[in-house]
Amino acid sequence: MASEDERAIRSLIATWMAATKAGDITTVLNLMTDDVVFMVPGREPFGKLEFAALSRPQQGARIDGKAEIGELEILGDWAFTRTFLKVAIEVPGGNCLERSGYTLSIFRKGSDGRWRLARDANMLTPHSGKPA
Amino acid sequence: MASEDERAIRSLIATWMAATKAGDITTVLNLMTDDVVFMVPGREPFGKLEFAALSRPQQGARIDGKAEIGELEILGDWAFTRTFLKVAIEVPGGNCLERSGYTLSIFRKGSDGRWRLARDANMLTPHSGKPA
Repeated sequence: MASEDERAIRSLIATWMAATKAGDITTVLNLMTDDVVFMVPGREPFGKLEFAALSRPQQGARIDGKAEIGELEILGDWAFTRTFLKVAIEVPGGNCLERSGYTLSIFRKGSDGRWRLARDANMLTPHSGKPA
Repeated sequence: MASEDERAIRSLIATWMAATKAGDITTVLNLMTDDVVFMVPGREPFGKLEFAALSRPQQGARIDGKAEIGELEILGDWAFTRTFLKVAIEVPGGNCLERSGYTLSIFRKGSDGRWRLARDANMLTPHSGKPA
């Protein structure tokens, strides 16, 4: 049976995806720690402010996505997940960018008992589909 | 002051780099858990056996590398690091492939008290240099 912590992290990921689809950046920003670090190939790691700035140009875009959690480990007040993500971004005008691949994410439980994303390694590429 | 666990993980990373340069794959394989998962962009996550198979063709190549640990957190019997890696592979014949970028790595302490790499997200690219 899933623990309360496990359920909380699955719920966080579901909320993240739903808020991203809805263009609700404020909710997404509340799901990460203030010292969050995002890591993607080909650029320097970045934090919460830059995540917010990067998210703004996507407003007006239609984002769809799906997250499949492959592994979820609770390590006391920390946790990590391996997730397969599939994201489609349709920009006004009609172009659609599809990306998929894996993330390794680390979560931290705050003194308020809430879990938040703390570190995220994003290995999505335009062409790496998961084999059917 | 660095804890004993912190020193052990720094030593593991130094040993990993030295053994890789020396082409000593056996030592490298002993530094990871049997259920290790390697994640890189554009392909499915893979384990210890595939890591060993991928390392074999590099024998005969001259590998040089440098690891700069940017963050190291001990979480009981687990730990994670964010590391900047720079690797140069010179294959017999003279071609040289340079890759650099960041890794997010998760380590686990075994019942024998030894730390080993358990999960690794590798975001190295051929062109992503760290700004000077």
